[in-house]
Amino acid sequence: MPTNRRIVLASRPEGAASTSNFRLEEEQVPTLQPGQVLVRNLWLSLDPYMRGRMSDAKSYVKAVEIGEVMVGQTVGEVVESRSPQFAKGDHVLTQLGWQLFGATKELVKVDPDRAPLSYYLGVLGMPGMTAYFGLKEIGQPKPGETVVVSAASGAVGSVVGQLARIAGCRVVGIAGGPAKCDYVKRELGFDACIDYKAGNLDRDLKESCPKGVDVYFDNVGGATLDTLLRHMNLFSRVVVCGLISEYNATEPYGLKNFRAVLVNRIRLQGMIVFDWKDRYGEALKALAGHLAEGKLKYRESVVEGLENAPQGLIALLKGQNFGKQLVKLA
Amino acid sequence: MPTNRRIVLASRPEGAASTSNFRLEEEQVPTLQPGQVLVRNLWLSLDPYMRGRMSDAKSYVKAVEIGEVMVGQTVGEVVESRSPQFAKGDHVLTQLGWQLFGATKELVKVDPDRAPLSYYLGVLGMPGMTAYFGLKEIGQPKPGETVVVSAASGAVGSVVGQLARIAGCRVVGIAGGPAKCDYVKRELGFDACIDYKAGNLDRDLKESCPKGVDVYFDNVGGATLDTLLRHMNLFSRVVVCGLISEYNATEPYGLKNFRAVLVNRIRLQGMIVFDWKDRYGEALKALAGHLAEGKLKYRESVVEGLENAPQGLIALLKGQNFGKQLVKLA
Repeated sequence: MPTNRRIVLASRPEGAASTSNFRLEEEQVPTLQPGQVLVRNLWLSLDPYMRGRMSDAKSYVKAVEIGEVMVGQTVGEVVESRSPQFAKGDHVLTQLGWQLFGATKELVKVDPDRAPLSYYLGVLGMPGMTAYFGLKEIGQPKPGETVVVSAASGAVGSVVGQLARIAGCRVVGIAGGPAKCDYVKRELGFDACIDYKAGNLDRDLKESCPKGVDVYFDNVGGATLDTLLRHMNLFSRVVVCGLISEYNATEPYGLKNFRAVLVNRIRLQGMIVFDWKDRYGEALKALAGHLAEGKLKYRESVVEGLENAPQGLIALLKGQNFGKQLVKLA
Repeated sequence: MPTNRRIVLASRPEGAASTSNFRLEEEQVPTLQPGQVLVRNLWLSLDPYMRGRMSDAKSYVKAVEIGEVMVGQTVGEVVESRSPQFAKGDHVLTQLGWQLFGATKELVKVDPDRAPLSYYLGVLGMPGMTAYFGLKEIGQPKPGETVVVSAASGAVGSVVGQLARIAGCRVVGIAGGPAKCDYVKRELGFDACIDYKAGNLDRDLKESCPKGVDVYFDNVGGATLDTLLRHMNLFSRVVVCGLISEYNATEPYGLKNFRAVLVNRIRLQGMIVFDWKDRYGEALKALAGHLAEGKLKYRESVVEGLENAPQGLIALLKGQNFGKQLVKLA
């Protein structure tokens, strides 16, 4: 049996996360308890929420402890099973985190014939579900409305925009840099994409959204959200899905345009994908259907090797990834 | 025919409104056009939204022009009618603003036998409707939940809290000073009332809301809203109804605790009572019913004479009123 390698939280970051906050360790692969399954992880998902788990501020789930393995979703294959529900060779989705092997009872089978395995960490996984339920249940877009989404080339944003386009909306992305914006427009088929790094978000929104904004799917928070509030229409909706601009910040941003919420009767609502756990099947079916019909495009950004996961997360938090960020473990 | 007296906007305030922003004028009482009704105003309502109309910042309705009569709702009696729907002596609700007489086609009859005339400007008028629809449709309180309302002794807040109590909730008010807090607890029957002027809002909320806050009905915005965000429960609701703390401010407050919206999946929604215009009858019936049963208490603060309306509004914006602020015109 090979040795397990894992990355644990070595210290809590102050401000931006750095590689010194992580430590690579080796250990024995654990012996299985009854009911457990030993999984060899093949793909690890990197997601912005992980920065939140590195801090001990109150959040919707508890922080990773110092010395504990970093959290994360993986796709892997069963190498040994003491559960009647899983057999050697099964492909599974797990919460085993940043490690090559793990023993667990919390896993679900995935079908490698329906889509590439890594898709279960992205478009068919938590990011895809987040996009699906956030847009449909909170954004509630109607045909002809204007939908804006930030982090538009990312795992969640790219799906949000394409689903909004399928729903008959005008779709405007916000992304960092001309390459991402080009991809969002040409490949993903958004009507427009604003490069926030150009520094003219307010003016560019006015130009790209001549009829104002009906739904803003917010993955970034901070100054971007503040600017958007000035463009929201009467009875518009803001899906508060992520605050990536704040995850590395030591001081929270002070939102100044909140008055618009009253004036335009805007509805803002926070969301976490787990709240729709009971309906994942519905989303999986819809997303897989769109993929099969070629209506949903999807891009991945792959880091090779567990040891490079910290650098991958750090780059993701700086917006340097392009598409769904993954670590290839095997 | 007596001369009309009216108060017009003389200049736009910068920061706090002052009496120099208003001017008292005299003019001929207008001659009626066909379909119009001449009304002698008896009561004028003073409301925080009036400060917004004195500025020319974008809002949900247009600003009062310089030289134009200040907006406001009144209750009066018909003194002459060229409309088949109204007769001399009818009591009516109008939008005639800060003046003793006015010719209008926009008026509705009110019933002086159902309630004192002034009540149609408060508990049975816009403030009452605001409380009713904001709490019921946006706050959506369930029995046993904790509801917090700011400006709790005011025209809207006092009704919100009493309706929440009738709905079986724990009700906590926020008001300025021990006298108002005492009234809110003893007279209105709230479970607790926090004096924000004591400067311990955060600590006092923790004490008064041991199970956190499920609904916050916000009439003030700013630092109070920011503090409340730290106490909101999972899936809680914020009714964004007023921002009185900001109306006189030259710089908007920067909301720092917005992260809580994501973490606790809070829903915030702006509201203006006009959005429920089609359902005013429903609210009127419910509120009049509660009044008749003695379940809804109501207090008025009266300024005598049109010439004192500016001072009345200025005091209201400073929180110096106690209950629904009215001007007695005749």
